[in-house]
Amino acid sequence: MTTELYPAERVGRVRDAARAAGLGAVLLTPGPDLRYVTGYDAKQLERLTCLAVPAQGDPFLVVPRLELPAARESPAGALGVELVPWEETDDPYALVAARLPRGLGRVAVADRMWAVMALRLRAALPDAEQVAAGTVLSDLRVRKSAAEVAALREAGAAIDRVHRRVPEFLKPGRTERQVGRDIADAILDEGHSSVDFVIVGSGPNGANPHAELSDRVIRPGEPVVVDIGGQMPSGYCSDSTRNYCVGEPPAEYREYFAVLLEAQRTARAVVRPGVAAQDVDAAARDVIAGADYGEFFVHRTGHGIGLETHEEPYIVAGSAVPLEPGMAFSIEPGIYPGPHGARIEDIVICTEDGCESVNGTPRELVVVD
Amino acid sequence: MTTELYPAERVGRVRDAARAAGLGAVLLTPGPDLRYVTGYDAKQLERLTCLAVPAQGDPFLVVPRLELPAARESPAGALGVELVPWEETDDPYALVAARLPRGLGRVAVADRMWAVMALRLRAALPDAEQVAAGTVLSDLRVRKSAAEVAALREAGAAIDRVHRRVPEFLKPGRTERQVGRDIADAILDEGHSSVDFVIVGSGPNGANPHAELSDRVIRPGEPVVVDIGGQMPSGYCSDSTRNYCVGEPPAEYREYFAVLLEAQRTARAVVRPGVAAQDVDAAARDVIAGADYGEFFVHRTGHGIGLETHEEPYIVAGSAVPLEPGMAFSIEPGIYPGPHGARIEDIVICTEDGCESVNGTPRELVVVD
Repeated sequence: MTTELYPAERVGRVRDAARAAGLGAVLLTPGPDLRYVTGYDAKQLERLTCLAVPAQGDPFLVVPRLELPAARESPAGALGVELVPWEETDDPYALVAARLPRGLGRVAVADRMWAVMALRLRAALPDAEQVAAGTVLSDLRVRKSAAEVAALREAGAAIDRVHRRVPEFLKPGRTERQVGRDIADAILDEGHSSVDFVIVGSGPNGANPHAELSDRVIRPGEPVVVDIGGQMPSGYCSDSTRNYCVGEPPAEYREYFAVLLEAQRTARAVVRPGVAAQDVDAAARDVIAGADYGEFFVHRTGHGIGLETHEEPYIVAGSAVPLEPGMAFSIEPGIYPGPHGARIEDIVICTEDGCESVNGTPRELVVVD
Repeated sequence: MTTELYPAERVGRVRDAARAAGLGAVLLTPGPDLRYVTGYDAKQLERLTCLAVPAQGDPFLVVPRLELPAARESPAGALGVELVPWEETDDPYALVAARLPRGLGRVAVADRMWAVMALRLRAALPDAEQVAAGTVLSDLRVRKSAAEVAALREAGAAIDRVHRRVPEFLKPGRTERQVGRDIADAILDEGHSSVDFVIVGSGPNGANPHAELSDRVIRPGEPVVVDIGGQMPSGYCSDSTRNYCVGEPPAEYREYFAVLLEAQRTARAVVRPGVAAQDVDAAARDVIAGADYGEFFVHRTGHGIGLETHEEPYIVAGSAVPLEPGMAFSIEPGIYPGPHGARIEDIVICTEDGCESVNGTPRELVVVD
């Protein structure tokens, strides 16, 4: 919440970017874009909250009267942006339209705006052509500032502390759900403001990359994939996967886990400015395919992270996006042959000559006694 | 998750409603509409999951390959709807468009679909005019079935158990945040699968209807508004507000609290089929205005509830929507004169001849020793 993390000049940068992209205005409802631009962590409600940044003229923030105290107390209250409250029986869409200049041409709406709001804004601004604000906003958001990098490091350290406590929770005879509940508590105890996801994939569930917590009892000798993350009070997110086993895992697991470790290390090693996102994906994939496990690596290698757990840049085949210093993303190859699987995930930040991982716990299998 | 709560015929009902509304197709991404229609509690991700229900032809569910196991295991897997998986490097929007018939005319998109997805669907279906699916879907969702009413009763009983434990947590010298953390744990312990919101508004924060949890220390003699809710494993939500005080509150608080109790009772008493939503709002408002507190009741009287905490019908001035049996909504007038405030909230269900509250804890102020 410091001005460093959410500097006041971002509204002006959005206006500049809108002008450069030939947009008449950018319209942002509650979500990561609004938070990035104003620092305001507004609740997403059926009542419209909307920051309007016209290419010409002054920006303004339309807020339900009930949310006015929260908006004023948020960093948005100190930006010099006019706050325009509306009453329960007003039409806030008409209010936005009436305050915007005529002849807007193309208008960008936040990627995560609810469609019903975008459609009501379209009806209120019938001459404007709507486009997604994502391109403009993600071009600003994708390169993290020093303060954002510090916030990601803080998030990484917090989730590392949770992983260090996982052996306390993981006991044979407990269910995934019981272990997951303890982990969720630890995510909050270690400084996050919310739990985003808790995957405790034991045995066959570890072979499903997006397994839900189940009532499956964890047994000795079963590898367990623990993929967890949350959002910090700063707004920035954590996400880290480590692998655990109560007692000794099967021999074939040890074999492919060694391949996975090498694939994840190799992918981290190729990260530097100018390398394409798809090349990082290929680096991990080549190691795994070279050891004949290619068919068991069924997802992309990573996703960007910041105010969202998944954002640009995506580390996926087909993405020629060149990496730049300040880009933050996961490197998380996995091998899922069944009846178990493994994934190793760090959040890394591209530096001038390589990358820094914000996660510092050992990547090796953690054998719990 | 029973077939009773999510009956298989809903996909057909959506198709019938689409035909009746002159829509070429209904497109639903993860969220309450998709869950209502299919029982599938899909995660909202940047990867497209989309149920397409064309007016002519067979419905299909496009899912990322990674989510295929979850979709198959969900009730959606048993609907006979074709599951169409896509790979990491496919264009899922083109996939949706290619499988839909030509000449769709108007296409409805889920109200809470991300705008970026609606815009990409528009680009993939350039001849179709997009409208919000809300009208069609909420007309189905607004009258709860017997199984849905049972699920709301279960949610109400769970949040009642939490309110009964609040006196254990509320001790002078503790902060709102500490109390709120205990309440959040209790919301999960008492059977919810997630915590939707926890408001612990002490003293002046109680005069802000949407106060955030703060580090303010709660002192003796300060009224505290506790407004809490969560989502049950069934998908249905709870929401109940009660008022607490450590020791005796100020005399003027007792005065307006008595008015509030009467206003909330009066509003519940007018609910029956055929009464307009606005008349329930007016019933509460008239009592409060009649006692000269009208200026301190700054929000609508209520909101519908079901798979969302806030949905149709809204109990607000200007809404002539006639109540019908099975409609479920909050009745939650408030009085916020400062430096404290109060709100009393029940979830009620319109019956054949009145209403039933799913919340059974006393509405009177709870004085904690």
